[in-house]
Amino acid sequence: MATAEATRPAYTLFYWPIPGRGIFIRSLLAYADVQYDEAPVEEIVRIKSLPFSEQPIPLRGPPFLVDHMSNQALSQMTAVAHYVAMKHNLVPQGDLMKQSLALKVLCDCNDVLGELWRANGSQKLQGEWVLWDQAAWNEFREGAFVDWLKQFEALALKFGCTLDAGFLLGTPNATLADLSAWSLWVTMERCLPALSKVINENAPTVMAICRRLEKDKSELRALQESDSKKWGELYCGGLIEKSIREVIAGGVDGHFHNTPA
Amino acid sequence: MATAEATRPAYTLFYWPIPGRGIFIRSLLAYADVQYDEAPVEEIVRIKSLPFSEQPIPLRGPPFLVDHMSNQALSQMTAVAHYVAMKHNLVPQGDLMKQSLALKVLCDCNDVLGELWRANGSQKLQGEWVLWDQAAWNEFREGAFVDWLKQFEALALKFGCTLDAGFLLGTPNATLADLSAWSLWVTMERCLPALSKVINENAPTVMAICRRLEKDKSELRALQESDSKKWGELYCGGLIEKSIREVIAGGVDGHFHNTPA
Repeated sequence: MATAEATRPAYTLFYWPIPGRGIFIRSLLAYADVQYDEAPVEEIVRIKSLPFSEQPIPLRGPPFLVDHMSNQALSQMTAVAHYVAMKHNLVPQGDLMKQSLALKVLCDCNDVLGELWRANGSQKLQGEWVLWDQAAWNEFREGAFVDWLKQFEALALKFGCTLDAGFLLGTPNATLADLSAWSLWVTMERCLPALSKVINENAPTVMAICRRLEKDKSELRALQESDSKKWGELYCGGLIEKSIREVIAGGVDGHFHNTPA
Repeated sequence: MATAEATRPAYTLFYWPIPGRGIFIRSLLAYADVQYDEAPVEEIVRIKSLPFSEQPIPLRGPPFLVDHMSNQALSQMTAVAHYVAMKHNLVPQGDLMKQSLALKVLCDCNDVLGELWRANGSQKLQGEWVLWDQAAWNEFREGAFVDWLKQFEALALKFGCTLDAGFLLGTPNATLADLSAWSLWVTMERCLPALSKVINENAPTVMAICRRLEKDKSELRALQESDSKKWGELYCGGLIEKSIREVIAGGVDGHFHNTPA
């Protein structure tokens, strides 16, 4: 019993069995070689349904993390990622501006997902959830989506990254910034392969950084492979994912993806 | 000239002349008694329109901040607030978990605004911006909105706050967490006074913390007074603000607000 206690992982991560926003925490833990437990869905649902005063920390929903060393809990993807990255030396060391820039990259990722996932399906209009329609997708796909990719690419170039070397903020090692970019773009590419072309065309340096991260840490590659095996191309789930797949198929990438050259 | 250089504020903040998300940065700078310049709107528009590679940091939009000491720039509200709070000792000292919890509170605030501001007017459906309709507002107002308030209140109570004493994370001094809550709820109350009742009823302890912050720092009260003088009840601007005001007037608070008891 003592041995089992001693080897108990330091954390339990609470997240649905999809990549979603959980991948941003899982990738950090994988890159840092940190073992963690994953809570079963029933336990997440139970906690989510408790009165706020009885939750481990008052929260809206997953991801959230319990640190068993301090017996404290933390919610919000950005905050949890910050905590894990700080604790396991995955932030730019001794440079507050770059630490905040890593948060900026993470927030940018979160905004991309917010736009792609239609505000996480939190909005209704005329009694219906606000999902994608083809016109809105086409406008987003040609506009903001490509802009986001170009913005990430400009950041990589600003800090001296090339196709062959460098990390996103010009640090000597990978940080929260690189792993956030990986979590966003590599997961999107895997789950929505029709978008692979536009991602790689507009952010080739960022994607090269991502490939180097995977080469450096087999745990990261293993994470994608395991997710792929467990959940296939499941991405964010529900009606939103269904609507994303429909408009991609009906838009320029679906056409490209489905039509042999 | 040397004197003018020597007294030049350390920062320039780039944000539209409305409270919006800028108040989260302005409140920290006010509370820390830090002088800063504010960029004119034309300059913000100019930078926002530049190619990403020519922006001070590749960004989507304000708020962003230039630190003149290091000549570096930072975007994303959460990241900028983190930077300013860290630099001016407005985070829980020597306690990483509480520092991350302060970020959680800030992210919660950002999510409340995202929901209230309909994903910041970033979404279209059938060619039109997704704004509020009455049914969606009524559902949000009775559900998620009250839940958010109760969640903030539960956090304050968890860390031992009362109507008379305490700060949001149980710290000896105010931190980013308290100032984020202030920026969210006090600004909302001032700009949308019809919501004052529901805010104070569901989060009395949080609002008591906010009042103590203002009592402690006249600069904070002065910030609200100055905003009020300059911009009246202007909140987030544009079509979103118009639609918020319409559905509040048409909903339970509008009825309450407009009908004398």
